[in-house]
Amino acid sequence: MPKIVVEVMPKPELLDPQGKAVGGALTRIGRPELASVRIGKRFEVVVEQPVTDTLLAEVREIAVEMFSNPIIEDVVSVVVEEN
Amino acid sequence: MPKIVVEVMPKPELLDPQGKAVGGALTRIGRPELASVRIGKRFEVVVEQPVTDTLLAEVREIAVEMFSNPIIEDVVSVVVEEN
Repeated sequence: MPKIVVEVMPKPELLDPQGKAVGGALTRIGRPELASVRIGKRFEVVVEQPVTDTLLAEVREIAVEMFSNPIIEDVVSVVVEEN
Repeated sequence: MPKIVVEVMPKPELLDPQGKAVGGALTRIGRPELASVRIGKRFEVVVEQPVTDTLLAEVREIAVEMFSNPIIEDVVSVVVEEN
């Protein structure tokens, strides 16, 4: 069944304390080259119907309203993964 | 600069209360066909060096230990996105 994958990230201009914490931990284990970390969300929506362009556009609208907080987050990607 | 994207999802056999809550909200707004939602995490690691297969394998190991809780989550994907 097709899966619609929606990716939400904190806006680039905002601090990301969770990401900073993980980056700090990576520096402490000796991997400072990996310290630039940002953490967002991945939503998987499994649907039992073919995913049309219309449905994908509707999901993008819904994602902005219901999967993210537009003040602090961006919906960066909405794609279909066929299984 | 290349970006390593790591995706972490709750294990399939586990309940996902956050996902269930969003699915319930979608049903209430009249979109029950979108109610099967699971919510995971997306990590973006920006690196200032070329991403070799070795580095990618190291990041996968680090992701299992530091980006996820292996008791309840799986690292489902580790890929490079060139910008």
